[in-house]
Amino acid sequence: MDRTLEEKLSAFRALIQKIKSYEEALGVMYWDLRTGAPRKGVEGRSEVIGVLSTEMFRLTVSEEMNAFLDEFTLPEVYSQLDEINRKIVKESKKEYDRSKKIPPEKYQEYVVLTSQAESVWEQAKQESDFSLFRPYLEKIVKYNQEFIELWGYEGNKYNTLLDMYEPGMTVEKLDLVFGQLKDRTVPLAARIKKAKDKPDSSFLHQHYDKGKQREFSRFILKEMGYDFQAGRLDESVHPFATGLNPGDVRITTNFKPDDISFALFGTIHEGGHALYEQNLSEELRGTILCTGTSMGIHESQSRFWENFIGCSLPFWKRYYAEMQNAFPTQLGNITVEQFYRTVNEAEPSLIRIEADELTYNLHIMIRYEIEKALINDEIRVDELPEVWNAKYTEYLGVTPSRDAEGVLQDVHWSGGSFGYFPSYALGNMYAAQIMHTLRKQMPDLDAMIERGELHPVKEWLTDKIYRFGKLLDPSEIILQVTGEELNPAYLVDHLTRKYSEIYRLD
Amino acid sequence: MDRTLEEKLSAFRALIQKIKSYEEALGVMYWDLRTGAPRKGVEGRSEVIGVLSTEMFRLTVSEEMNAFLDEFTLPEVYSQLDEINRKIVKESKKEYDRSKKIPPEKYQEYVVLTSQAESVWEQAKQESDFSLFRPYLEKIVKYNQEFIELWGYEGNKYNTLLDMYEPGMTVEKLDLVFGQLKDRTVPLAARIKKAKDKPDSSFLHQHYDKGKQREFSRFILKEMGYDFQAGRLDESVHPFATGLNPGDVRITTNFKPDDISFALFGTIHEGGHALYEQNLSEELRGTILCTGTSMGIHESQSRFWENFIGCSLPFWKRYYAEMQNAFPTQLGNITVEQFYRTVNEAEPSLIRIEADELTYNLHIMIRYEIEKALINDEIRVDELPEVWNAKYTEYLGVTPSRDAEGVLQDVHWSGGSFGYFPSYALGNMYAAQIMHTLRKQMPDLDAMIERGELHPVKEWLTDKIYRFGKLLDPSEIILQVTGEELNPAYLVDHLTRKYSEIYRLD
Repeated sequence: MDRTLEEKLSAFRALIQKIKSYEEALGVMYWDLRTGAPRKGVEGRSEVIGVLSTEMFRLTVSEEMNAFLDEFTLPEVYSQLDEINRKIVKESKKEYDRSKKIPPEKYQEYVVLTSQAESVWEQAKQESDFSLFRPYLEKIVKYNQEFIELWGYEGNKYNTLLDMYEPGMTVEKLDLVFGQLKDRTVPLAARIKKAKDKPDSSFLHQHYDKGKQREFSRFILKEMGYDFQAGRLDESVHPFATGLNPGDVRITTNFKPDDISFALFGTIHEGGHALYEQNLSEELRGTILCTGTSMGIHESQSRFWENFIGCSLPFWKRYYAEMQNAFPTQLGNITVEQFYRTVNEAEPSLIRIEADELTYNLHIMIRYEIEKALINDEIRVDELPEVWNAKYTEYLGVTPSRDAEGVLQDVHWSGGSFGYFPSYALGNMYAAQIMHTLRKQMPDLDAMIERGELHPVKEWLTDKIYRFGKLLDPSEIILQVTGEELNPAYLVDHLTRKYSEIYRLD
Repeated sequence: MDRTLEEKLSAFRALIQKIKSYEEALGVMYWDLRTGAPRKGVEGRSEVIGVLSTEMFRLTVSEEMNAFLDEFTLPEVYSQLDEINRKIVKESKKEYDRSKKIPPEKYQEYVVLTSQAESVWEQAKQESDFSLFRPYLEKIVKYNQEFIELWGYEGNKYNTLLDMYEPGMTVEKLDLVFGQLKDRTVPLAARIKKAKDKPDSSFLHQHYDKGKQREFSRFILKEMGYDFQAGRLDESVHPFATGLNPGDVRITTNFKPDDISFALFGTIHEGGHALYEQNLSEELRGTILCTGTSMGIHESQSRFWENFIGCSLPFWKRYYAEMQNAFPTQLGNITVEQFYRTVNEAEPSLIRIEADELTYNLHIMIRYEIEKALINDEIRVDELPEVWNAKYTEYLGVTPSRDAEGVLQDVHWSGGSFGYFPSYALGNMYAAQIMHTLRKQMPDLDAMIERGELHPVKEWLTDKIYRFGKLLDPSEIILQVTGEELNPAYLVDHLTRKYSEIYRLD
């Protein structure tokens, strides 16, 4: 590489790092707002966030960025770059194009609209009145359709939205895998609904001291290999994980005094996200690649740790004694098998975020089908409540009696996040597929988990997934790790095996 | 005001607000670093801080700023501005000039030097070896002398440094007030040293539960009128208060399990700073005036609440029962008078930050005299340990046996903060003078405090001081509130009265 190119590359990397610095500063402020920033300072803080976001956006679409990208995408220059720099150029170019194609006034209008829509949605949900939210949602759909025209699309229009969260994912692929998943899960859920031997979950809803919950959550996180010198655990209304940089990956949870499972499994879930971000390769620091490769793969890690490790019997054979020790009056008379069965209870329900491992995917498919139809003008916004309720009745056998527990339950659409929901189900499918491979490579896995040997699992995931960050696309990751493309069979098999046993189905 | 001027003014105000937004973001990040940010994220965070600081500095000295200031300082334009905008222009101009006069490379060298010097100082203190720190301090003094030449000065060179922390303060004024203060405090301290009736402070050093200390600190802050919806209390090694914006003013303290007074009076002290920042006028939000007018006046408010309210007998007559309630085994047998006498113990000592209300000022004067002499080339850096020890022997009657407890005890010089120390003593003098006026205007003050009526005190301070922020200079504030210029007699009278009674001197 010639001297000038090297200098230019280093200037380009400095620009990228600058953008990442703004992102990190914003991350600290969002974390702060959600974990106890004083109420009266919020307005002032919003202005600060506005200033930094604007500057970050300005850098992303700057003339300087454009010039760098023009230069580095020239074939004779691109070919001189190493793997990491190529991918940085590619991802930066993708972001640049996406941002540049929307006229700034249009984007500004959209930002204002979605920020209004979120508070309208809150009110509509409170009053369970879809008609309040409808005009906003109609506009949001229209803007998204316009954006798709500007961005361009291949095949289905919805592909462009999917690609934002899961690069390379398409309606064609999703229809296929979701179809298989649906065909096998709907009957399974129906059989469970009719099962007689249902666990009594009342012991999960006694009083659980928050301090002790926190202590136990910290203990489990340490066992998972979460590094408290590179993170911290705090409380917020909605749990989240945020990777500010690989040395500072924070988790929050919500310790509910009358529900032990919420914080417990929530912490393991966010812990899975955090392990990904804590174990990104040092080489990627300060670059656009220093994060999870997609929402789906990120979710696969939270789900892997939550469902495939944290909800497994070997895990509780190891840790249940400590748990009973922390809560002797609540759990003293509950056996580990009872505990395991109960936390894995499957019950078709109306609310996505309360859904179990089995029925969760059906909640996602309903949203996916609706989004796809909306974007392609196959249904109208005003038809949503009706369509929603019909699908819930068909897939889950339950029917919302009010929009608050139906079409109004999720915040995503008010913010315009179409294309995001599938990530959750993709995460479950990826996780099952990854687990299948891990079992092949570590035949002794259950016994290891039962001995509390979680460290090799984290190391394996680091080696196969975490360290690559965004250097590899999600499809490359899954192919590299498991030797095949996304395949829903592993999740279906897992769910069938697990729930047949728990509910003694035959 | 003509239309164009109004538009320009609003663009100027937007630029100022932008600078303030960077300042607030940096404030959040510093707060975060000091209250529990994970160790491994610190390096990454430093880069983020670097990026934002650089951008903030760039805006401060930008061509845009220069053009605005050129325009608004034209007499025919300036005369059209209202009081607030005039002062904004004045302060911005002062900052612009100060920053512009230092060549950027020179400033960069100085930043690197002081950041190295701080870690060298830490090591030197640990090894109690001044010779390690000496070469760095010599350079830092030289840079400050150079800067003074570039900035210009009137009268004494040290005036330029004083003015950074206490606008308008000069060596001529300080020599006078410090002289009076010294003449009356040194003999008083000597008399106390010989007093026979000394309190037994061992009960302050029992085990005090941290959780209960936190609860009690929160209670006292609320009683002072600290608004927890516009702030929060956290823990850090070195206590501080930070005003991010008037709706978000945070306090930290350090709850020591074997010392009840550290966190208690520390919290009241930081609470005083915080009341100032929480009660700045809404009109000043987002401007350069939205902060305390000087370090001295700021310190006067922390000292007012700590020494004149929190260390007073009426205060404890009201709150001691609650305190005993929180710590019955430690304080059950201690009367309020014993408690009051003990927390007010005066004892000449070697360490400034552990000094009592009386001897504290002597620690400051020693540093002031040394700084002034250093800047004016009247002493050399290598003479410091000797000069330091001689002054401690003369003023306080105690002699350091090691540099760690002598000349190396404070961090300030390693960061180049010459001119800062006098603020602490000025704060004490201002506080006494303000208290004198308050007593005249509220003759019933002691009885009010004894009834826990602290609210009117906060309101009075807000009306007289807090709301003005930097709109008035410190000398204007003190003149407006008390009807006279800074006068050390009030502090001397207060100390003489208080300690004569406590130590039964006659």
